[in-house]
Amino acid sequence: MALTMYEASIPALKKTLSSLAAILAKAAEHAQTKKIEPAVLVNARLFPDMFALARQVQIATDQAKGCAARLAGVEIPKFEDTETSFEELQVRIAKTIAFLDGVSADQINASEARDIVLQLHETRLEFKGADYLLNWVLPNFYFHVTTAYNILRHNGVEIGKRDFLGSR
Amino acid sequence: MALTMYEASIPALKKTLSSLAAILAKAAEHAQTKKIEPAVLVNARLFPDMFALARQVQIATDQAKGCAARLAGVEIPKFEDTETSFEELQVRIAKTIAFLDGVSADQINASEARDIVLQLHETRLEFKGADYLLNWVLPNFYFHVTTAYNILRHNGVEIGKRDFLGSR
Repeated sequence: MALTMYEASIPALKKTLSSLAAILAKAAEHAQTKKIEPAVLVNARLFPDMFALARQVQIATDQAKGCAARLAGVEIPKFEDTETSFEELQVRIAKTIAFLDGVSADQINASEARDIVLQLHETRLEFKGADYLLNWVLPNFYFHVTTAYNILRHNGVEIGKRDFLGSR
Repeated sequence: MALTMYEASIPALKKTLSSLAAILAKAAEHAQTKKIEPAVLVNARLFPDMFALARQVQIATDQAKGCAARLAGVEIPKFEDTETSFEELQVRIAKTIAFLDGVSADQINASEARDIVLQLHETRLEFKGADYLLNWVLPNFYFHVTTAYNILRHNGVEIGKRDFLGSR
């Protein structure tokens, strides 16, 4: 017995996307309670040349839907990257989770040796499925969800690591 | 064919620990160049009640050595959590990587159904090996490495996501 590609990917992505949604809901509530313009948090960043909160959420969801689609061998759903509010970011996360729900274990499994090619501007990256999941998707996905968390935490939103990890 | 527990754990942990070491080396160099007392960065944090950089590195390494030891069924090496400099943090990361190098694939594999119990203060968490790896170790580990990165990035150290992901 060993791990299937599905077990190693979709459940954790869905769980953490749900945590991200709950964290953004707390941030929206914090803005309302403290009479902060929500866009201040949506556009907050940790350094001038880092991405703002909205972009962190966009990239995290891109990693999740890209992973599910590439491993399953189906087309990646295209989102327009136009979210400017907590409500719109919530819609994006919900659409991503729905897409992940629509991909079956059978579609994902046996993808560990599938060839995956990413074209990032000038750079072409080639992976096998397992390497893509373990050394690209998971570190990238957690990086952007954690950075979204850190942006909000740095701005005083009362969240803790339990919100990031979700309930057990 | 599917993923083994070893493939899904040790290589990515080692790769990201090496990235963390390289990021800390850049931070130490930045401190020297900019005439910043290194302890200022080692003790930097993103919010008053968040952990400082040194603690982030301690917890990230704890996650990695705890994972390798628990999945292999061997004793977890105990580190004293006394690091106060970049040099000491580098030693801790190197010791962690050396411990991971000493654990074989055979020891880790077939651990997906192993019972793992974590006692965190008042809370007792029970896992099977696969759940422990995928829903505890990996999110926690990446969370703390990313937060270390974000603390340094927020303080002006010139690093990018490529430093976090490491070379391919």
